[in-house]
Amino acid sequence: MSTGVRRQVDRRAATTERLLDATIECLADEGYVATTTRRVAERAGVSQGAQQHYFPTKAALVDAAMTRLVEQLLADAAARGVEAATERERAEALLDLIWEIHHLPITPAVLELFNVARTEPVLAQRVAEIICAGMSEIEALAAAALPSYAGRAGFGDFIQIAMATVRGTVVVAAIPGATAAHPSWPALKAHLLGSLERLGSPA
Amino acid sequence: MSTGVRRQVDRRAATTERLLDATIECLADEGYVATTTRRVAERAGVSQGAQQHYFPTKAALVDAAMTRLVEQLLADAAARGVEAATERERAEALLDLIWEIHHLPITPAVLELFNVARTEPVLAQRVAEIICAGMSEIEALAAAALPSYAGRAGFGDFIQIAMATVRGTVVVAAIPGATAAHPSWPALKAHLLGSLERLGSPA
Repeated sequence: MSTGVRRQVDRRAATTERLLDATIECLADEGYVATTTRRVAERAGVSQGAQQHYFPTKAALVDAAMTRLVEQLLADAAARGVEAATERERAEALLDLIWEIHHLPITPAVLELFNVARTEPVLAQRVAEIICAGMSEIEALAAAALPSYAGRAGFGDFIQIAMATVRGTVVVAAIPGATAAHPSWPALKAHLLGSLERLGSPA
Repeated sequence: MSTGVRRQVDRRAATTERLLDATIECLADEGYVATTTRRVAERAGVSQGAQQHYFPTKAALVDAAMTRLVEQLLADAAARGVEAATERERAEALLDLIWEIHHLPITPAVLELFNVARTEPVLAQRVAEIICAGMSEIEALAAAALPSYAGRAGFGDFIQIAMATVRGTVVVAAIPGATAAHPSWPALKAHLLGSLERLGSPA
């Protein structure tokens, strides 16, 4: 590539990046309804013309932002990995990872999209696909990290339950003042480790 | 009271009821942003003048609707009760109750308010108060139904965890197409019953 073309490619990538970051921030801070293409362009410091060139509609913008959001989340989870000498330590590391991926700066944007997906059928379909894909990745990561538990009856349920419990905690913890109404991470982690130990013998 | 006054009181009560029902339906179907006083008056079939007379602002309307929503929820839970001969059966009945109060027609309105409370400080304060009060009622109901478990270490955590897990399940189950990503109630109930059995001995 010539230097000129290379510069143009870099500029396009940087603009795309800024628009998607602004979309995620806007979803988290202001909610889905207030996330308009105009508001995102303003936040990104990108002209409305340029914004329309890259992502002509709000749907295109939100879809691209969601896709990147989950890719980053899973890349981050995979990079962090679940490594430790013993399976018990890896079980703890896995649960810590599940907790951490529910406490990232992007978490509020994810909660906002989950909520909107309830009543917006088009968004629901993409959100459901992304949730199911994410769950499969977590299950694969868990199975690789905990091979002797993975063969036991109820392992898949256990991972779904661990994810649901952390998600249900975060939903309330995100509300200022509701601290007394959700479990602490140490209590929750001990409860989940106990359930893991109790899984049935290998089938 | 004269018949005329009585009729007026009944009419006022019926109008209040219609406005609050319409607020809850509007929150559930259309979301918080679309829940305007005008939209609620339309849904209730009440004139805007009358609506303003009863609830002058959206905040007043949502606050009254939330308060009534939780009163109904807890009255319903208390009426249903957790009755059975053995403590083990009462534990099952309590978990079924927790599941059922997360699957009422008003549940979508509650999820909508939880989400909005994340970014609306005034609403957050009321929602947090209501969540904490509701949690206390559930804890009291649980302690009365399960006296020998209630004395064990971790019982309070257990109730918070049970509520969080069911809430986290409902948040995803509310998204059409995401069925594969959340635990079934039988799996979840068995997991929670196992955790209850495992609670420490009485302190």
